[in-house]
Amino acid sequence: MTQKASNPLKENIQNLKGCLHGGLIKESSEKYNIPERDILDFSANLNPYGTPFERQAGLSDYAQLAAEALQESVNYPDNRYLEFRCAAASFLNQKNVAADNIIPGNGSTEIIRLFCQCVLNDGDKVIIPYPTFGEYEIQCRLQNAEIIYVPTESVYTLTEEQLREAKIIFICNPNNPTAVLRKREDLLRLAEKCARAQTVLFMDEAFIELSDPDQSLADIAAENNFVFVMRSLTKCFALPGIRLGFGVASKNVADALNRARLSWNLSPLQEKTGAAFLSMKGGVHSEYLTKSRKMILTEANYLKEELSKVWGFEPGVATTNFLLIDIRKRTLTSSEMVERFARHGILIRDCISFKGLGTDFIRIAVRTREENIRFIQTVSKVFDEWAKEFAENELQNTLKTHKTGERTGGRKNERETCEYYPCHFEGQDCTFCYCPFYPCKDERTGGTYVHSSKRNAKIWSCTDCYIPHITSVVEKLLDGLMEDEETDKLLQKEWQEIILPILEEKDDDSVLSYCRKIKDGKI
Amino acid sequence: MTQKASNPLKENIQNLKGCLHGGLIKESSEKYNIPERDILDFSANLNPYGTPFERQAGLSDYAQLAAEALQESVNYPDNRYLEFRCAAASFLNQKNVAADNIIPGNGSTEIIRLFCQCVLNDGDKVIIPYPTFGEYEIQCRLQNAEIIYVPTESVYTLTEEQLREAKIIFICNPNNPTAVLRKREDLLRLAEKCARAQTVLFMDEAFIELSDPDQSLADIAAENNFVFVMRSLTKCFALPGIRLGFGVASKNVADALNRARLSWNLSPLQEKTGAAFLSMKGGVHSEYLTKSRKMILTEANYLKEELSKVWGFEPGVATTNFLLIDIRKRTLTSSEMVERFARHGILIRDCISFKGLGTDFIRIAVRTREENIRFIQTVSKVFDEWAKEFAENELQNTLKTHKTGERTGGRKNERETCEYYPCHFEGQDCTFCYCPFYPCKDERTGGTYVHSSKRNAKIWSCTDCYIPHITSVVEKLLDGLMEDEETDKLLQKEWQEIILPILEEKDDDSVLSYCRKIKDGKI
Repeated sequence: MTQKASNPLKENIQNLKGCLHGGLIKESSEKYNIPERDILDFSANLNPYGTPFERQAGLSDYAQLAAEALQESVNYPDNRYLEFRCAAASFLNQKNVAADNIIPGNGSTEIIRLFCQCVLNDGDKVIIPYPTFGEYEIQCRLQNAEIIYVPTESVYTLTEEQLREAKIIFICNPNNPTAVLRKREDLLRLAEKCARAQTVLFMDEAFIELSDPDQSLADIAAENNFVFVMRSLTKCFALPGIRLGFGVASKNVADALNRARLSWNLSPLQEKTGAAFLSMKGGVHSEYLTKSRKMILTEANYLKEELSKVWGFEPGVATTNFLLIDIRKRTLTSSEMVERFARHGILIRDCISFKGLGTDFIRIAVRTREENIRFIQTVSKVFDEWAKEFAENELQNTLKTHKTGERTGGRKNERETCEYYPCHFEGQDCTFCYCPFYPCKDERTGGTYVHSSKRNAKIWSCTDCYIPHITSVVEKLLDGLMEDEETDKLLQKEWQEIILPILEEKDDDSVLSYCRKIKDGKI
Repeated sequence: MTQKASNPLKENIQNLKGCLHGGLIKESSEKYNIPERDILDFSANLNPYGTPFERQAGLSDYAQLAAEALQESVNYPDNRYLEFRCAAASFLNQKNVAADNIIPGNGSTEIIRLFCQCVLNDGDKVIIPYPTFGEYEIQCRLQNAEIIYVPTESVYTLTEEQLREAKIIFICNPNNPTAVLRKREDLLRLAEKCARAQTVLFMDEAFIELSDPDQSLADIAAENNFVFVMRSLTKCFALPGIRLGFGVASKNVADALNRARLSWNLSPLQEKTGAAFLSMKGGVHSEYLTKSRKMILTEANYLKEELSKVWGFEPGVATTNFLLIDIRKRTLTSSEMVERFARHGILIRDCISFKGLGTDFIRIAVRTREENIRFIQTVSKVFDEWAKEFAENELQNTLKTHKTGERTGGRKNERETCEYYPCHFEGQDCTFCYCPFYPCKDERTGGTYVHSSKRNAKIWSCTDCYIPHITSVVEKLLDGLMEDEETDKLLQKEWQEIILPILEEKDDDSVLSYCRKIKDGKI
């Protein structure tokens, strides 16, 4: 008899962290005090073309489906779910895929969970190429499996022996969050290797309809016990609230999974809606999905191009309805960025929960042109605000240092260790690293508006203004800012009493002529 | 490296049998070629009072809920499901149960599954008192747990040591299919014993709202890691298609289960409908549920009383919305009965899948008075048909025996080994155990209509007719039936040529006077 704990749950369950996902509209609405309807969600990846109800002529009306579903709901659903499974098979448009190969799911995460529960024993190994979707890890941890992480680029170089160690290898195609789309021919070679190693190649094709359905392995899954394909209706039909996905497997694997799944995992409304969508003429090549893909490709490329102009924004490949953006050149972390966008009512996905990405990446959905423009405009706003706050903080830090006496009167603060030193002139005083009056918009300072091609906007450039970097000016500004008054008011006063006299050449020190000498290389 | 099989699924999954349930309306419609709307389902146990949409004034309209749900479905659900969880807590009306104690489920079976997945390791033991609901076994087998079956009556006599062997003991209250309701005071003692043994007392209270909610242990579960309560919305709100249930646990157990459950297991429609139902004024003591319980008790007792009159029908306790009926005295098995009722468009539950019940029990739902009357009438029809078919089969067997020469001319077939011998008179010929002319409706035979209080109907009684049991008549009938013609036509001919002359006293043997002698004890 083993000693039992005071909590009946298994240890791996007690230690389990929930999976982090995007789409937290309600939570963000509460946190930032913004009405839900005013929130624009770039953190969840849905088809921006709209739902089939909005787009597809000839489809049953939702109200009609819902009314029929209520009538049926007074009885238990027929849990063979034949209508849904037949529709799913015909949607895939592969002659060897029939209803017998389909496992219906209450969302595709239920399919991942079911598969893991049916394949993994305690301590079994799985291979998860990273970065990728977080649910594989969670569902494997629920089974107390051991996870072998490999970089996503190394998948094809895994040896048969390495594969053999694992029960499952998870491949997300196109990959969330990198958007990298793998080619069917490469995957076929991997599938062969997996079959020899008797390791299941679990293909998560949740986004493939919005990318390139011809790269799918659904037809292979129908005839190979070691290839399993998972599809989602959530993304391609833009209705995550309907909760629908399905698995494709060989008949004997599908039979067992259908026996093992929850007795009634779909409601009549789910089955009816799913069957209506999946029965769409042309299936994965329907007019609705073809137009969706065209729109997504145009918008993904538009976003990629526009965001490439933002300094420190490096968008990845544009293959599907989301983009991964490398922001490691920016000082802002991804979590700070999420926070700042949220305050403008825009949700983006930091990628902290994706192994290997840390705070260096954000993921954004591809949405409609109008929404994408709003996003790009918000990028400018966010960075302007950030720069302003940064300057304010710098000023406060400077004042704090001055107060605590670390600066001794008259000694120049050159910060020669700064990697940008000198950003204006040799011997400059760096006390005000960021000008407290920025943007003063007074061209007498030497500052001027310039066009920034990267930001595609006019910005105030201080390159030729030296005033706040001259020690005598710095001393006066600091002394003035020491007074017991709000900083904003003190700055207004100083502009009047210290800067304006300089610009109007009424100052005793003749700062402007000193500046001219610096410019002319005479100092 | 262990050798892996050609099928990646675990052995316990490959061997898993799906759980059998009632409510197979669509399948029965196909099998018996009866339109779904004409099928009356006594095999699934739902609140016969109707859904809250039909009954409860002031509740949101379903169409309205469905329309709102669609609007919300364009985003991922907020998977904290706070609205549903708050409503569930308030429904239970226990001051120590809050949203933090609630785990939402896509039907209550998902709650059983989740709990088993989070508690059971391979080879762990569980105690299942039988007969009971089949999902506990299936969900434990999914975890490859070892099941200890104990008779349901012996639960309270289990020792602490016996309990300690198991991780979970499952108690269904009231128990499906026996309808036995356990008392809270007895369960509290069991809960104490379980806590000492560190064995979870899993209380399935799926039917408690339709029986007696005051026997619930929900308040105990909220404060005890070793008591878990499961509730269902399917049964008490008569909407199995909506798929809703929930678990009640201590805060720390509930937290872990909420992290471990499927990320988005409820759709907006599920959450909204569930929250609307559960927010009903009065909760478990709402007007809707109080009236439901009153109706169910009346109807359960009506059914019990009427069915007790049927020979060989022994209904169990009437405590909730279903009745278990012991039919072991009948020749018909439960599966044959299911088949015969289905042909009349009525589904009942054979209890073969319930361990210990074999083919000796059927379970029927308690429905409205009108539907219950239709059920009782169908019982009569089913047994009449069965008796007729039985007689026909007997006749065919008799003819077959005669053909193969097993009967030698003139020798009486007395069947003295029959437990009913003599059912008419000493020395009777039993060749036609069942009269081939039944019911002839001719009182000259001695037969007559009598009132059966058990069947509450007039039935044709042959007690005083001896004609088909007199050897000379039997010989003539058998010879005539040997002709190459359809049995029905031969019987018509024999009635004309053999029986009518007897009744009209034109026969040479003067059979009727012989019969009178038997009756008078002169033979």
